Amino acid sequence: MPHFALHPRLAADTLAVGELPLCSVLLTDDSRYPWLVLVPRRPDLREIVDLAAEERAVLIEEIAAASRALRAVTGAEKLNVAAIGNVVAQLHVHVVARFAADAAWPEPVWGRGAAVRYGAGAARERARRIAAELGLVRRNGID
Amino acid sequence: MPHFALHPRLAADTLAVGELPLCSVLLTDDSRYPWLVLVPRRPDLREIVDLAAEERAVLIEEIAAASRALRAVTGAEKLNVAAIGNVVAQLHVHVVARFAADAAWPEPVWGRGAAVRYGAGAARERARRIAAELGLVRRNGID
Repeated sequence: MPHFALHPRLAADTLAVGELPLCSVLLTDDSRYPWLVLVPRRPDLREIVDLAAEERAVLIEEIAAASRALRAVTGAEKLNVAAIGNVVAQLHVHVVARFAADAAWPEPVWGRGAAVRYGAGAARERARRIAAELGLVRRNGID
Repeated sequence: MPHFALHPRLAADTLAVGELPLCSVLLTDDSRYPWLVLVPRRPDLREIVDLAAEERAVLIEEIAAASRALRAVTGAEKLNVAAIGNVVAQLHVHVVARFAADAAWPEPVWGRGAAVRYGAGAARERARRIAAELGLVRRNGID
């Protein structure tokens, strides 16, 4: 039976935020936009329609949870949600916080210029705050 | 109580395909890409996360149904699904059939050049075939 492995391109461009029941939650390492990526941990999946119906119901609720967390942490003026996957075929869903003053507004963020990486501390801190909003905080041994 | 009315910009750029339980299904009048738009018939809605959870479950199944219909009618190599709404704020979900040979591949379709309208007959015929796949065919009086 095939097993799930995160696509190396997604791994290279993101930091781990944590694991929801269906999806791994990643923070895209691009400080221009607060940008999460949800990846269902199912092998050989390319399209939302190819998920089982029960898992689609979980996916849309995990999208909603990621949206609420991103709003709470960033004050997003608009959310952009998308499953595109023309380049990286492994099913992944973008949830991006948008602002009328951001670099691409009102255009979508995909394929617009090169990522501006966070400093290491800033990315970790943002991932930590989003994990906390999602109820995914690791307690670092205090338990 | 506010009532739902389709945003005039969406109305101007599309043809009606039919009505699913939650969403109006529209065909974007751009022959470069087979492109559906789903609009939940709920007033003052901007984000997926602002739908009630029960309606989100319906939305993801209507996205799946639109995806299957688009695949069946066009042989789509990839599906792109997105709720963006930076320009037209009324919640609407794009479901686009993509091909490695299409005009924007592998980039997303949004904000890339001007629409190339279908001829009137071709748009109607495509909308009719998608409606049939969705089980939404009008019988034109034969009943």
